[in-house]
Amino acid sequence: MPLINRLAIIGVGLIGGSLARVLREKGDVGEIVGIGRGEANLKLAVELGVIDRYTIDPCEGVGGADLVFLATPVCSIASLVELLAQFLAPGAIVTDGGSVKEGIVSPCERLMPPGRYFVGGHPIAGTEHSGVEASFATLYEGRRCILTPTGSTDGAALGKVQKMWEIAGSEVILMDPVKHDRVVAAISHLPHMVAYSLVNAVEGYDRSDDSILRYSAGGFRDFTRIASSDPAMWRDIALMNRDAVLEMMDHFDRYFARLRSLVENRDGAGMERFFEESKRSRDAIL
Amino acid sequence: MPLINRLAIIGVGLIGGSLARVLREKGDVGEIVGIGRGEANLKLAVELGVIDRYTIDPCEGVGGADLVFLATPVCSIASLVELLAQFLAPGAIVTDGGSVKEGIVSPCERLMPPGRYFVGGHPIAGTEHSGVEASFATLYEGRRCILTPTGSTDGAALGKVQKMWEIAGSEVILMDPVKHDRVVAAISHLPHMVAYSLVNAVEGYDRSDDSILRYSAGGFRDFTRIASSDPAMWRDIALMNRDAVLEMMDHFDRYFARLRSLVENRDGAGMERFFEESKRSRDAIL
Repeated sequence: MPLINRLAIIGVGLIGGSLARVLREKGDVGEIVGIGRGEANLKLAVELGVIDRYTIDPCEGVGGADLVFLATPVCSIASLVELLAQFLAPGAIVTDGGSVKEGIVSPCERLMPPGRYFVGGHPIAGTEHSGVEASFATLYEGRRCILTPTGSTDGAALGKVQKMWEIAGSEVILMDPVKHDRVVAAISHLPHMVAYSLVNAVEGYDRSDDSILRYSAGGFRDFTRIASSDPAMWRDIALMNRDAVLEMMDHFDRYFARLRSLVENRDGAGMERFFEESKRSRDAIL
Repeated sequence: MPLINRLAIIGVGLIGGSLARVLREKGDVGEIVGIGRGEANLKLAVELGVIDRYTIDPCEGVGGADLVFLATPVCSIASLVELLAQFLAPGAIVTDGGSVKEGIVSPCERLMPPGRYFVGGHPIAGTEHSGVEASFATLYEGRRCILTPTGSTDGAALGKVQKMWEIAGSEVILMDPVKHDRVVAAISHLPHMVAYSLVNAVEGYDRSDDSILRYSAGGFRDFTRIASSDPAMWRDIALMNRDAVLEMMDHFDRYFARLRSLVENRDGAGMERFFEESKRSRDAIL
């Protein structure tokens, strides 16, 4: 018997499509229903064999599903859950792949009717590409997936979602939603804010002089790759994880100001220590 | 006849060794004399065929050379030139590969005896590796090399150094030394200051919580790769290019503060514009 009888995926792109592919490949899902707003993408998903059928109506789409996976922008998840909650089958489990958790888990838990269960999740995986044509079965292999149970999370529901991600090849980590949001603010959201600011700063300096960016070499391009990320997605993340993002931006600012004063004071020994400390931490995560 | 009869290279590592290899390969150099402080590295350079002979005495080493290339840390270049200037052969050209120019070009021009010529240079190339064993003939192929002539630079000397870098496969760009220092402060020194600060900030936050860095994924590792760069080298660069580095750090700070206030004010439209602008600039340099 497969782990999931009927899986409803809302948002059949890179994240949703890749989960569908791996569960199908492993024989751990009966039927897969795709739900989305773009019919062309959903038709392509059927053609590619990623989903069995589709609907653009989320309320209809979740009917009879024992597991619902939301892979839509973070700002849309709670309102979608509000819309479809009453259409969930008894015993249905709803989980998501949003990269912010507290602002999703709190409302979604409250919105669950009796006998339906919400489990917050965040698979730490992705590529620069999007759409179902970018999805592939091994996206989650060897990656981490953070699940964020709370005091009111159902144990059996958590177990099933954990099993699903383990089948997909991920190492599952359990974490409090608030802690999750701080961790990702540090290792992902802050770097994005820094990269976007850096590119704009260099480009802004550029305009006052002549085109500086054209002298940039591979190092600059690698360093700023994440500044090519989707602006709407990052707007939503910064809106939803505002407090943790602000906290980390301020935290970064203190370190940047410390380095600035070392440079200003020509404190060579201090700078070398600062750089060595950083190199040591960076080399340790290689 | 080769472009260079006797080439003296001070600092036979990745930069100096790679130049030696390509000039030899193209048949554009007669003899190559390696000069350095580490005898083991110099012996290895002879064994590898990168240089013909070596000495640890720079004054002796430059004797009879028509071209001297300094590939040593930026802080050492002017004092080395001061030391060896009187041993230069008539007509000798001295050039360097330092990534800061104004602080090198000004003193080195003044130090040249009559009939000896200094040309400042900065090949924009490198890898994370160092030492002569890391050198290879194609390091400069398709890369840019900035030369920084001033009003008192000898035209024939500039032409010969330019020719040398073109033989190595680089596109040569001429730029004022002060402008060079601002350009590299923007596209290279600032990103390094930001990356070092970012890693220390995340690591510092880490210590107050539990190890956050262990959750970091590929994106964070790519973004912070340059924080693994050599601390002593970056100390020297920040000391030598202090004013331009400070100017760019302050410039970055204004953009970072602007984004911070967009996040604080929940200005979704403003954030999206900020991210879009950055993505557009970044995508344009792909």
